[in-house]
Amino acid sequence: MTDDMLPLEGVRVIDLTRILSGPFCSMILGDLGAEVIKIEGRDGDAVRRQGDIVDGMSWYFAGFNRNKRSLTLDLRTEEGKAVLERLLKDADILTENFRPGVLDKMGLTAERLAEINPGLIVTSINGYGSTGPYADRPAFDFIAQAMSGFMSSNGTEETGPLRAANPITDLICGLYAALGAVAALRGREAGGPAQKVEASMMMSMLSMMAYLSAGALASGKDPARTGNDHPIASPYGLFHTADGDIAVAPSTEAICAKFMTELDLGHVLSDPRFDTNGKRLEHRAELNAMINAALSTDTQANWITRLNDAGVPCGRVQTMLDVLDDPQVAAQEMVLDVPHPGHGTVRMTGFPMKFSATPLRVRHPAPDLGGDNDAVLREAGYSDADITRLKARNVI
Amino acid sequence: MTDDMLPLEGVRVIDLTRILSGPFCSMILGDLGAEVIKIEGRDGDAVRRQGDIVDGMSWYFAGFNRNKRSLTLDLRTEEGKAVLERLLKDADILTENFRPGVLDKMGLTAERLAEINPGLIVTSINGYGSTGPYADRPAFDFIAQAMSGFMSSNGTEETGPLRAANPITDLICGLYAALGAVAALRGREAGGPAQKVEASMMMSMLSMMAYLSAGALASGKDPARTGNDHPIASPYGLFHTADGDIAVAPSTEAICAKFMTELDLGHVLSDPRFDTNGKRLEHRAELNAMINAALSTDTQANWITRLNDAGVPCGRVQTMLDVLDDPQVAAQEMVLDVPHPGHGTVRMTGFPMKFSATPLRVRHPAPDLGGDNDAVLREAGYSDADITRLKARNVI
Repeated sequence: MTDDMLPLEGVRVIDLTRILSGPFCSMILGDLGAEVIKIEGRDGDAVRRQGDIVDGMSWYFAGFNRNKRSLTLDLRTEEGKAVLERLLKDADILTENFRPGVLDKMGLTAERLAEINPGLIVTSINGYGSTGPYADRPAFDFIAQAMSGFMSSNGTEETGPLRAANPITDLICGLYAALGAVAALRGREAGGPAQKVEASMMMSMLSMMAYLSAGALASGKDPARTGNDHPIASPYGLFHTADGDIAVAPSTEAICAKFMTELDLGHVLSDPRFDTNGKRLEHRAELNAMINAALSTDTQANWITRLNDAGVPCGRVQTMLDVLDDPQVAAQEMVLDVPHPGHGTVRMTGFPMKFSATPLRVRHPAPDLGGDNDAVLREAGYSDADITRLKARNVI
Repeated sequence: MTDDMLPLEGVRVIDLTRILSGPFCSMILGDLGAEVIKIEGRDGDAVRRQGDIVDGMSWYFAGFNRNKRSLTLDLRTEEGKAVLERLLKDADILTENFRPGVLDKMGLTAERLAEINPGLIVTSINGYGSTGPYADRPAFDFIAQAMSGFMSSNGTEETGPLRAANPITDLICGLYAALGAVAALRGREAGGPAQKVEASMMMSMLSMMAYLSAGALASGKDPARTGNDHPIASPYGLFHTADGDIAVAPSTEAICAKFMTELDLGHVLSDPRFDTNGKRLEHRAELNAMINAALSTDTQANWITRLNDAGVPCGRVQTMLDVLDDPQVAAQEMVLDVPHPGHGTVRMTGFPMKFSATPLRVRHPAPDLGGDNDAVLREAGYSDADITRLKARNVI
């Protein structure tokens, strides 16, 4: 153990997940230093065939499956299950995102898993949780967005409920599951029980409704769908400069005063129409018109600098390409160029967790399907003859 | 150490965070079993005064500050800083969400913190990261949504870029920071270095753009803003039944076939206008009209049951009140009734991480401001006379 030891060094993860939520969880564990063995059916994770494919590699797959090795395994065969059980003996964490009950049907009940490896932390990801009336429903991000309350609050009165474009419940749930797995590992290593941990897409998003859920619980009323207008803060939103919009969010009275002063509108805040947040909400259109007029005297870039320098949170709406080309994103190393042998260099987003002593890094690019079959099986004690037989019988 | 030991039992967190992103991080650490001491200025975290306040308690504050104790401390005074330093000696984790550089200005440089406690894991949360051209900018969720690419992909062609109503970058960043802190703790306990860990709102959201970022990197093109229509899957979206809409997401060709068969529209998939996903995208309006006509023959509730039973992910758009009253949410114990002495019973959302052996629970309701001053200071070795003096001098 040394000073350059990654946080999860020495941890072994057997990963049965596919598509996005589960693979995001296991990628994070890999990013943090765990050794992750991604087990796929012989046709591979469907995401290998999704999104833009360059030189035979899906960049979407590559960006969400780095720091893993790949073992193909037909888990419908007894021999395939036996290989899985042998791998589980030496593992710390099993990740899976089958529908609840599927592991049981494969014979991997909680009891059987504890027999194989009493220290194993089983990490399950699903749509709605493994108990309750919807436990057996198939999961999908869009549906979890609808069921969790996210969609009903997203959008405007005109649009009606809107989904987010990115599969946000998949990713939040995967992140919760990764945290649950690491916490359970820490608990076990500190003398607590090895236990099963679970996260669901619907409940993960529900936990992030913040003042919308708190307000509904306290008042018994549903929040309004207000688009870019904050329901209880004014001024707030997108405003127009000489050459583009800026997003401004004065979060307190003090910052609101700084904002108005920087616009030479400080006097407005003593006008009886605008001297409280409540009145500014009431006269929002009038106030916004004055703000837009003042902002029209300078450029987007200048206002962003001026307002941030004055302590007013401010930025612009960046398209995906803007973001990927942003100097702050470069400074934070959030776009990585990762060589993938046989597939050229894949560009992907980087690590949002920054560790001062052991920065995270790509130790393995996303694996080719079954690319680590021989190495993984040899490490698990299989002989070359065993491996040849498993191949001949289409188990791997 | 026993079988009912929570994952972070024995871990001490000194929490300097305020508003949402940081407090969400420290709450999660508290939920997982850490002892969290929330240090507030003598006017308290601003969220104590936000949202619906019932019996003197903000339900928004209560729902995001459970499992903490509160110590007031004026950190602008030397005596206040000395108290903080004494508390840090025995801590495992320090959480903070000041602007980068503020801790340094308080005298708590990395060097000084390592002197006080070489094992301390400093966990920092900020808007853009602590290096790079935007490091000094003030942070706010709405701006991070705009800068990260989230807003530009959210909405429709008509609405233009839209923020999400919930402060999603605050919460995702807080969750990443919690994971970083727990991972760093595990690393330290397993023999690795104690290190600083950091997460930013903009980069946390960027890491969740999934196929939108991967597609932009691979193609050099920005994604379209397509509202509820999936850019590359059809059928998909909100459809009309006899008495309400349903969200349907057939994620594969096989599930698409199940969906159409359940609607008695199986023959449509052999029609040359609809026999591939590409063609169905092209003729989306026509296809959706046929689906809506078929769905008009039965109710929302029946279709949700029928389609899920057939393996087709399906649900309805629930308002916040619908969600909070949902039987699945009840089965998952995702609405908690928590007694808050002096403030009645506060309702809040529950724990999205489910641990089989040590279910998370509310061990402490959200604290009154400074409600634990005496107890915390006594535990740190201060005498009653010391405490009286600190009170008299308005340090606590």
